[in-house]
Formats: sequence, C-alpha cells, structure tokens
Amino acid sequence: MKLQMIRKTKDPGIGEKYDKKSHRIINQNGTFNVQRVGRQSRIKDIYLLMVTTSWTNFIFFTALYLIGINLIFACLYFFVGVHHIEGVDHTTGWKGFADAFFFSVQTFTTVGYGSMYPDSFGVKAISSFEALLGLLITALTTGLLFSRFSRPTARVVFSKNALITEYKNGKKAFMFRMVNERKENLLETNATVILSLQNKTSDGSYSRKYYNLDLQIDHIYFFPLTWTVVHEIDEDSPFFNLSHQELKDYDAEILIIITSYDEAFYEDLHIKHSYHIDDFVWDKKFKKAFYTNDHGEVILKVKDVHTIE
Amino acid sequence: MKLQMIRKTKDPGIGEKYDKKSHRIINQNGTFNVQRVGRQSRIKDIYLLMVTTSWTNFIFFTALYLIGINLIFACLYFFVGVHHIEGVDHTTGWKGFADAFFFSVQTFTTVGYGSMYPDSFGVKAISSFEALLGLLITALTTGLLFSRFSRPTARVVFSKNALITEYKNGKKAFMFRMVNERKENLLETNATVILSLQNKTSDGSYSRKYYNLDLQIDHIYFFPLTWTVVHEIDEDSPFFNLSHQELKDYDAEILIIITSYDEAFYEDLHIKHSYHIDDFVWDKKFKKAFYTNDHGEVILKVKDVHTIE
Amino acid sequence: MKLQMIRKTKDPGIGEKYDKKSHRIINQNGTFNVQRVGRQSRIKDIYLLMVTTSWTNFIFFTALYLIGINLIFACLYFFVGVHHIEGVDHTTGWKGFADAFFFSVQTFTTVGYGSMYPDSFGVKAISSFEALLGLLITALTTGLLFSRFSRPTARVVFSKNALITEYKNGKKAFMFRMVNERKENLLETNATVILSLQNKTSDGSYSRKYYNLDLQIDHIYFFPLTWTVVHEIDEDSPFFNLSHQELKDYDAEILIIITSYDEAFYEDLHIKHSYHIDDFVWDKKFKKAFYTNDHGEVILKVKDVHTIE
Amino acid sequence: MKLQMIRKTKDPGIGEKYDKKSHRIINQNGTFNVQRVGRQSRIKDIYLLMVTTSWTNFIFFTALYLIGINLIFACLYFFVGVHHIEGVDHTTGWKGFADAFFFSVQTFTTVGYGSMYPDSFGVKAISSFEALLGLLITALTTGLLFSRFSRPTARVVFSKNALITEYKNGKKAFMFRMVNERKENLLETNATVILSLQNKTSDGSYSRKYYNLDLQIDHIYFFPLTWTVVHEIDEDSPFFNLSHQELKDYDAEILIIITSYDEAFYEDLHIKHSYHIDDFVWDKKFKKAFYTNDHGEVILKVKDVHTIE
Repeated sequence: MKLQMIRKTKDPGIGEKYDKKSHRIINQNGTFNVQRVGRQSRIKDIYLLMVTTSWTNFIFFTALYLIGINLIFACLYFFVGVHHIEGVDHTTGWKGFADAFFFSVQTFTTVGYGSMYPDSFGVKAISSFEALLGLLITALTTGLLFSRFSRPTARVVFSKNALITEYKNGKKAFMFRMVNERKENLLETNATVILSLQNKTSDGSYSRKYYNLDLQIDHIYFFPLTWTVVHEIDEDSPFFNLSHQELKDYDAEILIIITSYDEAFYEDLHIKHSYHIDDFVWDKKFKKAFYTNDHGEVILKVKDVHTIE
Repeated sequence: MKLQMIRKTKDPGIGEKYDKKSHRIINQNGTFNVQRVGRQSRIKDIYLLMVTTSWTNFIFFTALYLIGINLIFACLYFFVGVHHIEGVDHTTGWKGFADAFFFSVQTFTTVGYGSMYPDSFGVKAISSFEALLGLLITALTTGLLFSRFSRPTARVVFSKNALITEYKNGKKAFMFRMVNERKENLLETNATVILSLQNKTSDGSYSRKYYNLDLQIDHIYFFPLTWTVVHEIDEDSPFFNLSHQELKDYDAEILIIITSYDEAFYEDLHIKHSYHIDDFVWDKKFKKAFYTNDHGEVILKVKDVHTIE
Repeated sequence: MKLQMIRKTKDPGIGEKYDKKSHRIINQNGTFNVQRVGRQSRIKDIYLLMVTTSWTNFIFFTALYLIGINLIFACLYFFVGVHHIEGVDHTTGWKGFADAFFFSVQTFTTVGYGSMYPDSFGVKAISSFEALLGLLITALTTGLLFSRFSRPTARVVFSKNALITEYKNGKKAFMFRMVNERKENLLETNATVILSLQNKTSDGSYSRKYYNLDLQIDHIYFFPLTWTVVHEIDEDSPFFNLSHQELKDYDAEILIIITSYDEAFYEDLHIKHSYHIDDFVWDKKFKKAFYTNDHGEVILKVKDVHTIE
Repeated sequence: MKLQMIRKTKDPGIGEKYDKKSHRIINQNGTFNVQRVGRQSRIKDIYLLMVTTSWTNFIFFTALYLIGINLIFACLYFFVGVHHIEGVDHTTGWKGFADAFFFSVQTFTTVGYGSMYPDSFGVKAISSFEALLGLLITALTTGLLFSRFSRPTARVVFSKNALITEYKNGKKAFMFRMVNERKENLLETNATVILSLQNKTSDGSYSRKYYNLDLQIDHIYFFPLTWTVVHEIDEDSPFFNLSHQELKDYDAEILIIITSYDEAFYEDLHIKHSYHIDDFVWDKKFKKAFYTNDHGEVILKVKDVHTIE
C-alpha cells in the first residue's frame, strides 16, 4: 500500500479508527461533522445560542420573550381583575385584556404614565414585581446585545477551490487563497495545514491518516491583501506519489487552522476551514485580486479571491 | 528506597515538604485542597462570588438585595411620614408601610406612575436619592448578569476513572479520557500531566515528589470527539517500578493541566483536574464513544466518556 | 543589480509583485494603503464604525439616531391623530407635531410623566412598542459607549523621523524612538522591523523585496521612558551597500510591528507603524527626553520623543 | 572596578545613562518612578482614572456628576421659569429652585411621577433633552461600574523583605516569597528577576547596569500556596563578589516581573514589583506559612508570607 511510504504525522485530535467511512471532517460552514448526543443543556447554552444566531432570529426571539412576558402579566392582571387598575377604559372582554396588556408594558418598561395605575394591594404587588423583573430583563438584553456586537468574529474568506498546479521551476504545488473581508487588519497570521486520508483496513473498519503539509510561508506579519498559502509538492510531500484518482479513493480532505491577531477586536483568533477533494481544481491559477491605480493606491477586489484562470 | 531511582521533576508549585500527610491536592471539583485564612475581604470578592455562584443562589441574592433596598426606603418613608406621599390609600399601620414599600419600588424602578408622588421636601429629597440609586443598582445588576453569561467556562468532562492497562505491542499505559460537552469547539488543546507521590521522611514529615509524564500526544489541533491522553509505561516512566500497592502507599495523585482555545468565548482557557489513586482502574479499556451512522455522520455519545469495558 | 547581494527575507504578507509602482504600504496614520472594493457591508461594520470613529462623530451619530427615532414616532402619532393623546395642548399644525414629538420622547425614555398619555387602542399599541424599543436602543447605546471606553487602544507615539547616524565605535545605525504617552505601563514589549524596497523588473512590473532588520535590543521588559530601537549597519545589513539616493530610488519603507502587554487594559496589543524614505534624517541624534530632578525622580518630557539635535 | 567582571544583560527598557543618581525604578506600590510631562489628556484618561481610582473616590465622583448635571438642569428650569412646570409648590426663591431640582431628578432618572410636568414648549424641550441625556449617562455609569468589577486585578502579595541567606549545601541564595491572596487560582506562573545597579561614571553621570538572575524554578504550574523564588549565589551570580556595603553603594534594586493565568478573570496577567537594597534582610529564613491539619487539609496563613525568623 502506497500510503505506508509517506511519513504520517500525529493524530490532530480527530481519531484514527472509524467503524465506517465518514464524510468530510470539517463542513463547508466551518463546523465539525460531529453530532453530540446525550449532553445536558444549561443556561449558558441558551446565552450562546442567542449570541451566535442570526440577527433575524435574535430580533425574533427578543420580540418573542418581551411580548411573552407582558402577555403573562396581562393574564395575571386579567385574572386578578382589571377593575383593580384605575384609569382603564374597559375591564372585561378582549378590550379589558388589551388594557391589562398595555398596563403591563407601561410597568415593565417603567414608562408608567400613571393614566393607568394599580389600585389594590394585589395589583400593586404584581406590578412592583413586574417593574423589578423589567430591570433584570433589560439588563439581560443589554448584555446579549453587547455580546453579539463585541464578539470577535473574523471575516476571513477562503477561496472556493484549492489548486494543484504548476508553481515555480516546473514544480507542482498545492495552494489555496484567503482574504480578510474586513477593513480592520489582521496581524501575525499563522497557517497550519493538514492532509487527511481515509482508507479501508483489513478488518473492514476505516482508518484515517494525517500528514502535516510544509508551507512555503506559514507566518505573515501583515495581511492587507490576499494570502496564497503554498505547499510545494516535492519528494517529501504526501501528494508526491498520489494520483488524482488515489486522492479521491482516499477521500482526501485538507484541514486548515489559521491563527491571527485581530486589530478590530484586539483578540487572537483561530479560524478553521477545510477543502474536500471535490473542492480541488487541477492546473489552474489564481487570478491576481489587486492592482495599483494611477495614484499609487493598491485596490483589492475582495470577491476575486475565488477567481481562477 | 525505590523512589530515588526515578528522575523526579521540579516542584510544580505545590511544595515539597509537609508536616503531615495531606489529602489529594486538587479536589474532584477542580479546586485546591487549601484553605486560606487571615486574608482581607474586598469588594471584588463579592463580585466574584456573585459571578461564580449557582444561578439559584444568584437569583436569591439578587432578589434579596432588590427587596432589601426597597424595604430600607419603605422604612425611611414610613419614619418621615407616609402622609407626605400624596395618593396613598393608608398612612399608618402595615397597610401604610405596604404603600410606602410600593411607592419605593415605583421610585427605585423609575416606573413612577404618579398615582403616589412625594409631597414634602423630605420625601422629594429621599425619592430623588432613591431614583438615582436605582440607576446605579440597575447598572450593577446589568454588569453582574453580563459577567455571568460571558464568563468563558469550558465544559470539558473528564472520564471518572484513569486506567492502567495494556496499550500497544503488549506495553502498558496510563490513560484518561476527555470530551468537550459544548457544541462550540476547542482548538489547539495541550495537556500536561504530573504524577505526585508523598512519602514519610526520616524526620517524620512528609515529602511530595513530582514526575512529569511523557505523553504519546500532548497537543491536538482539533477536539471534536473524545481525547484519550496516553502515557506509555516504559523504563523511563515513574510507574515502571511501582506496584499497585506502592502507588497506594505513596498516595499517588495525577495532576492535569489542560490549555485550549475556546471558540465559544474566543479565549484561551486553562483547566485543571486530578485523579487520585482511588480513581485508578486496572486492565479495563475505554469503550469507543462515537460511531459513524449510515449517512457518514459521526455521532458522539457525550456521556460514554466514562464508560469502560 | 546591487539588491541581489543582500539576503532578503520572506514576504511579510504584502506581496512581491505589483503591476505599477505603489505608495508607502502603511500610511502615516497606521492604516494600510489598500482599498477594499466589492465587499459586503454587515451589521458588525456599523458597530465597528461607531466604536472607532471620533468622539465628535459618535456624539453626532448618537444624537442623530435618538432624534431620528423620535421623529419617526412623532410622525406616526401625528398620522394616527394627536387628539388620541390625552393632555396635549395642541392637536394640529407644527405645535401638535411638537407635542407628538415630546410625547414620543417621554415614552421612548420611559420618563412617562403622564401629563400626556395614550387614549386610544392605536396610540396605546404604538407607545407600547416605542417603550420596548426604547429599552433595546438604550441597551445598544450602553454597549457602544462601553465598547468605546474599554477598547484597549495603546498610545505609543513614534518619533516623527527615523535616523541614520553614527552610533558606537564609529559604526552607523538606523534608529527610531518610541514613547508610551499613557501613564499605565507597557510590559514585555517586542519590536520587529522590516525594510521594504521596490524596483522595476525587466517586464515593467514592480517587485517588492523585504529585509528583516537585526536589532540591538528587540525585547524590553519595561517601557517607562523612551525606547530607541537600533539596527546597526554592519556588513549583513541591507543598508550597508545602499546610498541615500539608492534608498530613494528603491522607495525605501520601514515596516514596524510592536507587540506589548498593556497594563491599562490587561491585553496584548499589536501596533504597526512605518517610516518612508522621506521621513529619514541623516547624521542627527535624538535629544535625551528625560532627566533626573533633585529629588531623584525621573522626569520624562513626552513630546521630546520627536526632538533631534 | 568589580562590576566589569560580571556579565551584564541587556537593558530591560529603563535606560543605561542618567544625568544624576535616581531613586528606585519601581516604587513600592508597583508604579514607576517616572513623571510624564507635556502629554495630552484624552477622554480615555478620564475613563481609566474612574476605573482605577479607589471605591471611595469613585462613589464621590459619581455622586458629584449625577448631582452636578441635575443642578445644571435645575438652573436651566429656574432661569426659564419654574412656573412653566405644572404642579410645583413654589415658583420662586430657594424653594422654587428645590422644586426645579426635584423635577430635574425625576426627569433625568425617568421616574417621571407626573405630579410635576412640563407645561411650556421650552421646558418640554429641555426636559426631553434631559431624559435622553439621562439614558446616556446611565449607560456610561453602567459601563464604568462593569469595568471596575471585571478588571482582572491580581492580588499577589510579595513578602515585605527579600532575603540573602544560607540555602542548601552551605550555599547562599537571594530569595523572596509571594502568595496569591485570592481564592481563585493562578496557573502557569512565570518569574523574571533582574538586578539593577547604578554607579557614577568618570564624566559625572550615572550608569545603570542590569543582570538577569538565574532562578532555581522560574515557572510553576500551580500556585495554591506560597512561592519562594530562589536565586542561588554561585560564581556566575552578580551577588557573588559584592558585599553588603557595595550593594548599598550601587543602590541595588531587584526588578521583578510575574506573568500568570488568572482563573478568576480568565486572563493572562503581568505583575511587576521591586525590592530596594533597604528591603533586603541577611541571614534570616522565611517561616513556613502553611500546615496540614488533622483532616489532611492544608491551611495557608496568607499574612505569614511576610514572616521571617
């Protein structure tokens, strides 16, 4: 078996033995192809969900719990008796419930016009509780909003395809390209690239092997333009002996880990990405994504990171 | 003495000489078996307590201080005279006190319906102070809530037992297993494992010796599944010459320090853990905690991290 | 070509081949001379803009959206009918609109005096929505303000000029100077300095070459005074063979990356800076920027970081 | 000159040439003995002042600006005419001003009872502005309070004295001791220790020389008890040839930099400290600060970190 001839590297943490053939390890959206079952949910999971979900979802959920809480209190006031709220126009029916709801919002938000106000011990007590709860829910929402905004999410875009192509002096190389979509810069960026191959073993299970790829440049100080990460395919490269078809048979996947200091959030970031054999393109080149204009300024066309020619 | 033959490593910071035999250094909940006496309490300790205590406690304490502050102001208004609050139903007795309390909440939360309002210089002054204080307490509660949520607490679960068992090629190994219970990934995870043995010295005191354990893999890039940390018991291993009984006599304890980058909170985390000799199991194996389903997806049963067979 | 004789270092991430001659890579304000086109705007870009813009702009934008939102609601109330707000002085004309606006502000800020209050289902509903929105906008503004303040922006000032001057033992050196303008200290400060030269190649394009400069001291533990970063021009230095005119022809630019731990914000910082050949001064010296007074205290004149003599 | 014989290390960033003899570099409170003059104040300096000042000062300043803002608005209302505020008891004199002040607080805090409410265009406009300003000031105060609490300030206490005393095998050593006063642990703690000596040069100026001290242990994994940092005085030590009197003449100062991961705040911390020759004690020993009780628990007496015997 050819694979035996290549010096494999240590398991990067994904495991070497599987009962069946498995899909790509890292999905195209950057998550792992792993489902966790049997784990316990905790309050912090809800927080993380609210912080990482889309803005549409976040606004929907926020509206939901704000309206939900006020509906619950409206029910409470309605149950205790809307006539205990002085100044309502209606005390029964859906109009009475609406007034109870509006009184609830005026209490929850602490707007408290006073055109409606509690007039019995019970309603005074409930509305006191609601006003205090309102403070806490506002505090919580403030925290959630701030967390969403201040979350240091990099916007590094990887080229759609990874290339195996002629490089320099007739040598071949494996390469992919990245760009920082954000205006704020990334500094001290590092790349680690690992090839994963899986093949059937004699006992019917599947074995994954891992090969760290040597890179022409694995650290850049600045990252204002595109960065083409290049692995030269020389005799020490695991790609050296493997044909296109063999890479397909071994279900080749490239695992990438990028670390960088993000000037926007003053944090060190780690980004993971993967290219599956189906994302590979042979014998094409990346089109240059930037040019210098007549004023000596460098213009970077962000979307051209994907363009090959 | 056998221990003399093993190359011990430097004190990891826990001390080498004790007057008496002491319990395990790191408790099962991850704290140290050390009580600090004579230290001064400071405001930040209260903050840290509120941030690290359970949610039940947090809600209890928050309710306590919110109600407490309002009770204090209710007393103030009651003492100055509830009849200075215009619009109250009662000015004396517990009903008057209740109205003073409700007026306090309406002021503190800034709901201020106006059905009750201050009608003398004194009450105007006190209520002005309370409203301003309300802002500060709300600010503080907002900060506490946000701190609790945004606290980057990893959820790495360690196997209940550490194993000493056959490993490869007939060699024995010491091993334990970890899993990340959270969906968000850990990257660039490192493990440091130290064996601590204590034995009585000739002068009656106890001496602790420390031995860094060489690991098969001490760094993984990704941590989507379980990680079994393995120390091979070869001639250089401190375990090599020690029998089960000797380890018991020396009160063996394994000290573990894990560092990792947490994708959920974008922070580097350090986790400590320990296995005491009583947590060791001999000649069993960890049951595989994941499998591949028919769609090529990897399914991880989080709770199986503990399962041995 | 002389440049061939000097051992260049790897591309620091800026690229080696340009179609035309380009300006300095890092502008004097620390940004890159790169314009990104075709990138998608996102909500987080607005956040980053609000957090990084000047205080004047921030106050202007904040006033703008606070007034804007209230104008929109004023229009809504005006459209639905100001006579549905009980207690207004005017229901039509610009005075009616002004009352609608004031009612909106009283609702949005949750001040809710109650002298004006909603008196129809429609206005009750709109004002409920506005009060809830007010909470969210306040939360958002709180987050923005906090982000602005807590942003760990170092205040390291670089000398206006970089010098090439006699240093020690008759040897020449390239040097520049820095000072930390802030009272809080920087610890463990590192400097990386790269020379960039661009020259026309045979095919009419421009090639950039990069040379890491060896520094006398590239790491300091403390940074309470000024730090003069010195590169001795010996035979291994790229400056050794290059005349003033040649440096000009090659459009020499010095790229600087400083990393440091900031005691003010408890964060690691990275600062970038550049000196263009036009910022170079020959055969001058930096004037000492600190002296010891009669009480043994060291006095640092921050602005003297620029002074040469 | 004896000092010539010792291999000095690089300037740690404090400078080597001074015009006069200067005091200790790092004061006993951990700040540098450097005064910055001529630097520009900025908004962030006020923030940092409010965040780092004592709680007493913070409460005082906060009260000051809350009352100050309300006094300014009270003046505005008084100037425009208190009779434009409906529901006041007094419109002139200090009682009218008091009512204007109370109205201001009710507006600023958004409590808005409505017993007093604006009744003219001017007062409506001013109070609208005040309510909006109130939101911003509350936001700001929330941020300040949160910053104060969440600031990762370590509570490492250094022994009052550094010792030069017999150590092991008859060898002498320089040592000092630290303890973590806080319950939350410090992990991966490093120590760097530098000796600074200043002496008069032939031209009348003072020269500072620096010597990195080799430590028995310069890194500990855990820090639950005390840590005695030990520098053995062998032939390579700068202390080896220097008598007590010479150390005094050279105004010896020990500069210390501690880095550690703080489990309380999940942050890497850097702490600096210094011992001046006057803090040195000869031929004493640190008294052990912890003992094991009968239940096998280790008891640490925090204040004993200073105790020598």
